[in-house]
Amino acid sequence: MISIRVVLVEPLYEGNVGSVCRAMKNFGFRDLVLVKPCPLGDFSKAMAMHAQDLLAAARVVDSFEEAVKGADVVVATTGKPGAHMDSHVRNPYYNPKELRAILEKSSGTVALVFGREDCGLVNDIMERCDIVAYIPASVDYPIMNLSQAVAIFMYELSGFQGGNIRLATSESMGIFYKHFDTLLDDIGYPEHKKDKTMMMIHRVYGRAMLNSRECYTMLGVIREIELALERAKNH
Amino acid sequence: MISIRVVLVEPLYEGNVGSVCRAMKNFGFRDLVLVKPCPLGDFSKAMAMHAQDLLAAARVVDSFEEAVKGADVVVATTGKPGAHMDSHVRNPYYNPKELRAILEKSSGTVALVFGREDCGLVNDIMERCDIVAYIPASVDYPIMNLSQAVAIFMYELSGFQGGNIRLATSESMGIFYKHFDTLLDDIGYPEHKKDKTMMMIHRVYGRAMLNSRECYTMLGVIREIELALERAKNH
Repeated sequence: MISIRVVLVEPLYEGNVGSVCRAMKNFGFRDLVLVKPCPLGDFSKAMAMHAQDLLAAARVVDSFEEAVKGADVVVATTGKPGAHMDSHVRNPYYNPKELRAILEKSSGTVALVFGREDCGLVNDIMERCDIVAYIPASVDYPIMNLSQAVAIFMYELSGFQGGNIRLATSESMGIFYKHFDTLLDDIGYPEHKKDKTMMMIHRVYGRAMLNSRECYTMLGVIREIELALERAKNH
Repeated sequence: MISIRVVLVEPLYEGNVGSVCRAMKNFGFRDLVLVKPCPLGDFSKAMAMHAQDLLAAARVVDSFEEAVKGADVVVATTGKPGAHMDSHVRNPYYNPKELRAILEKSSGTVALVFGREDCGLVNDIMERCDIVAYIPASVDYPIMNLSQAVAIFMYELSGFQGGNIRLATSESMGIFYKHFDTLLDDIGYPEHKKDKTMMMIHRVYGRAMLNSRECYTMLGVIREIELALERAKNH
């Protein structure tokens, strides 16, 4: 089973927050987390229409980390995908149909993260996401209204149950990335290339969506490499 | 060539009209006709954002007939599809993907007609349309915000750009797998686990679909590991 969480990072307009609630409920989604939102008053309720229950139940948190806690895959959404293939932060990106195809066989919690209306997600947050998603839009005017963008993702991701492949938890993947990072140090990987390579490794494994067994095996591979290095050093 | 016209019948809220303009421009559509709309003031402009040119160019007409004049196919949209197959007015209905499939091979002008926010399209107008379209939504709350519904149709009916991500060739990936295989030998990875692990590595990287640059970088990472192993052995 896939469960979808919508995370709005610092939304500026309460009307959009209400409209997001409505779009979520229209497609049967309920899990909404707001990171430092604008004040939510009568207009957000008016725009939520019959989804005021979602608005009332939305969790308000202070940080991105809190918002994505417990999520197995964190998807950054952007209206500005990477123009160049070597920009690993915003590349590669998936359209909503591709995202659905990727998620279809998996099981776990997926957080869909949307940035502020005026600037989207900053790179600092993009870097901490596993996958980048983008709605293919006109080059003349690609930046969508927040709630309309959410509506399109809800539409595209609704009505499928997901599969039964249990995704590796974000904790396990965090450990894996940490070990990979240490490995790069241990092999003397060029310092100036390291950040970029680690970002790319995050993107590659993020979209591969390892299941728990694969994550465990990959950790084993890294441990074996480390052991071989040590043996070689001490021989 | 298909050209799409959006027709809003008696929209009640100017904010929605502005949002519809934005969604249309986001997906490269420009032809908007308004039948007896509400007064359009500053809020509609604010919601249109950078699509105020569309708002200004929208044709305002007095009747449905005028609005669909010249259209080759007229599509009624509804949030209330026919419950019974013998209700011909609202049956059969197509979801946006099916509508796209239907239109894909055609050429001409298609009018997509959206009703009032409070009551949708009345049967009298539904009857004069050629096709009924419906966005599959939650039975609990199927009625969408007007501009979000338009956004989903625009998204589904727009010409996708296709990608520009050059995937790694199967030759490059073959070399990568070969090197990974050799690495497992070189680190003394347990022989009885090796085949299974290589298969998994293949699956993981296979579905990650590396682009050419990523493949190159990953090959570099493996080479660096090999070099570090050699250095360690010869120290």
